Amino acid sequence: MTVVIGAGSGGLTVALGLARLGRKVTLIEGGPVGGDCTNTGCIPSKSLIHLARQGRPAGEALAEVRRKRAEVSSRETELLHGTPNLTLVKGWARFLEPYVLDVQGMRVESREIVIATGSRPAPLEIPGLPPERTFTNENLFSMERAPEHLAIVGGGVIALEMAFAFRRLGSQVTLLVRSDRLLARESARVSPAMVGALERSGIRVLFNTRPFLYADGLMKLRPEGELGGVDAVLLAVGRLPRLERLEVDRAGLIPGSGGLAVDDWCRTDIRGIYAVGDVTAASRFTHSANAQGRRVVQRIALGWLPVGPAAWVIPSAVFSEPEVASVRLARPAAHCRTLFLALKELDRGYTDDLQEGLLELEVEPWTGYLQAATLVAPHASEMISLFTLALAERISLYRLQRLVYPYPTLSEATLRLADEFVRESPGGVRRWLKI
Amino acid sequence: MTVVIGAGSGGLTVALGLARLGRKVTLIEGGPVGGDCTNTGCIPSKSLIHLARQGRPAGEALAEVRRKRAEVSSRETELLHGTPNLTLVKGWARFLEPYVLDVQGMRVESREIVIATGSRPAPLEIPGLPPERTFTNENLFSMERAPEHLAIVGGGVIALEMAFAFRRLGSQVTLLVRSDRLLARESARVSPAMVGALERSGIRVLFNTRPFLYADGLMKLRPEGELGGVDAVLLAVGRLPRLERLEVDRAGLIPGSGGLAVDDWCRTDIRGIYAVGDVTAASRFTHSANAQGRRVVQRIALGWLPVGPAAWVIPSAVFSEPEVASVRLARPAAHCRTLFLALKELDRGYTDDLQEGLLELEVEPWTGYLQAATLVAPHASEMISLFTLALAERISLYRLQRLVYPYPTLSEATLRLADEFVRESPGGVRRWLKI
Repeated sequence: MTVVIGAGSGGLTVALGLARLGRKVTLIEGGPVGGDCTNTGCIPSKSLIHLARQGRPAGEALAEVRRKRAEVSSRETELLHGTPNLTLVKGWARFLEPYVLDVQGMRVESREIVIATGSRPAPLEIPGLPPERTFTNENLFSMERAPEHLAIVGGGVIALEMAFAFRRLGSQVTLLVRSDRLLARESARVSPAMVGALERSGIRVLFNTRPFLYADGLMKLRPEGELGGVDAVLLAVGRLPRLERLEVDRAGLIPGSGGLAVDDWCRTDIRGIYAVGDVTAASRFTHSANAQGRRVVQRIALGWLPVGPAAWVIPSAVFSEPEVASVRLARPAAHCRTLFLALKELDRGYTDDLQEGLLELEVEPWTGYLQAATLVAPHASEMISLFTLALAERISLYRLQRLVYPYPTLSEATLRLADEFVRESPGGVRRWLKI
Repeated sequence: MTVVIGAGSGGLTVALGLARLGRKVTLIEGGPVGGDCTNTGCIPSKSLIHLARQGRPAGEALAEVRRKRAEVSSRETELLHGTPNLTLVKGWARFLEPYVLDVQGMRVESREIVIATGSRPAPLEIPGLPPERTFTNENLFSMERAPEHLAIVGGGVIALEMAFAFRRLGSQVTLLVRSDRLLARESARVSPAMVGALERSGIRVLFNTRPFLYADGLMKLRPEGELGGVDAVLLAVGRLPRLERLEVDRAGLIPGSGGLAVDDWCRTDIRGIYAVGDVTAASRFTHSANAQGRRVVQRIALGWLPVGPAAWVIPSAVFSEPEVASVRLARPAAHCRTLFLALKELDRGYTDDLQEGLLELEVEPWTGYLQAATLVAPHASEMISLFTLALAERISLYRLQRLVYPYPTLSEATLRLADEFVRESPGGVRRWLKI
């Protein structure tokens, strides 16, 4: 029997995957089934973004978001109850010793345990800010109406996505960013592009600032300045692995600040104990949690199989307006050539009045093998898979240059950059290398 | 010196490509520079679609479309004038004999001639319909305001794109389709999906019908029925190669009904005479005209180079709502397995209230090599390149299954179908074939 702790994306992937292959699984969950993704993450946030873009009134949109997440969660619960070999145990688990768990008084033992407890919002104390005005992704979607002035603390994925959504719903929105750039993990060109998009939408962005006092709608900032009329504050200053109840030290595990360390098969240091999803230092997205979960299923049910290079090519996606998506080899070449195109230079950028879009490619000189790709574009999250495939399959720009891309699309950017690369490459290299 | 006849997409690609490589080029054009794409095709239609989706008033949107196409055309004209080695001759060309042209009285001779005269709308006579109410793509964008009731004759790319655009601009729109399906070149699943999308937008679709008489806003249909209040009719019943002025028979060329026959290098039967774009039977899109043009440049300037399989993998794209895009091997396997997913079954389909989206893959059994892909999705034209690459590079579904797709996106459809294929494939085949 395999024990899976946590019924979020990663845990569900492992539990359902193993059960369908005929393995007995016990799935332990103290909160709602579906975890963050279904209840406080992707499902409500993407539903809200969609409804906000449709121009639906805020109160109606927020109510519809709650209806949708309840429907997904109950569908997932039904799915679990209808899956043979799978037992759902409602309760919070904690380790007593390496292979022994306590689930609110019940003792559960297994030599195979998968930790998938996810993450929670990092806390931030703002003196004077009352709890009913304090939001994180966990209670944001319980709002009944859009705030007058939403101050968002943070410059990451959640901060950006919710800034655009609440602006569309009619709120005044101000982003308070501690550092001097947005989406710090992305290429340096992304932040100025997103600042342009935010300001065009009427969202104010303040860099190098942090809130330190709140009183009667007035938010005081450090090192200077203040915001007036703030009736809601969204804290989006990062995520912490959700380990507080689990007592992993009793299992012999020592988590780092980013979470549990795992190898390519999601194995922790303790034999038979795996970890997937946000609770590991290796994943920040639902799709990476799912990918880890699929690998654990393979490992447990099918024995050892090679991981293959594709497993290390994990795209990122931000569902802002425009979207941001990127993908990068785990170990890119030491010296890369960077190619860059502003998408407004394309015909489709012109017909669609595109302002901030861009494609940036990092390429190994000579061979033309892609090392990384960054897209800022309306549908970047759908377009990035071309590059994920090119990276995973070691497809060079010489070969991407031979493809035919539909006209007029933003995908033509790839052809433009490939043309530039091939034009400037020493003649004959391609034929000599046979690539 | 190379002579290029026609300054549309295909002709410009050849002329600019050769001139930049140092070859002397004479480019002959009787109409506006940019051809159909710039003046009566992609640029105005995609601009109109964009402005219509933004909710701009019809008169304003149509004026902006005319401003945009004028800007693109004058930019292209400037580009031509600023390109060394290139001479633009304004006038209509006709053959006197194989390597001799007459351009409105001027004699032009060359052993290397590229025909790129494009296509024109197929005519359709509707007795009683006055010229000022008769539109094709050639005069559609000169409208000052949206019609009250636009009848569109046809069920192809232009018909669908303009149906959605004019519905958005406020017109009542009725599609009159002669056969029993839309987009007849696409997979059979596409037509019912698009009918659903059209009807949801409030567009009426009548199949197996054709207009035969018009009087005072009343359009009589055959075999039965009539439409009232029709103040504009868009004829979109196909395209004919634009050969009427060229007198290609004097060059020894015998065009078929679809246009000039060419080989993979766009060579006609007469040595030194090439043809690219809509005037050939091998191209229906701007991007395929451009791809042909690039190949001609390679052939003329760089000598023989292998074409490679990518050259035969030409995607199609329809910019409707949702978009339709597909790609297919020129010679697919005789026996294919078809995999299909309705995109509303994906989480992103659910959050975005998607109704008609679909992904259909045709796959060689056992090996899992893709033979064709069809997408109906909001951004299908941007998503199709993943499949173009997979087809061109012979990447199997086994390998597409190992990729990580961002969550929640419609690209996950690929993973779902790949999972289904792998699950149902006989065990061990993959490892045995090493794919």
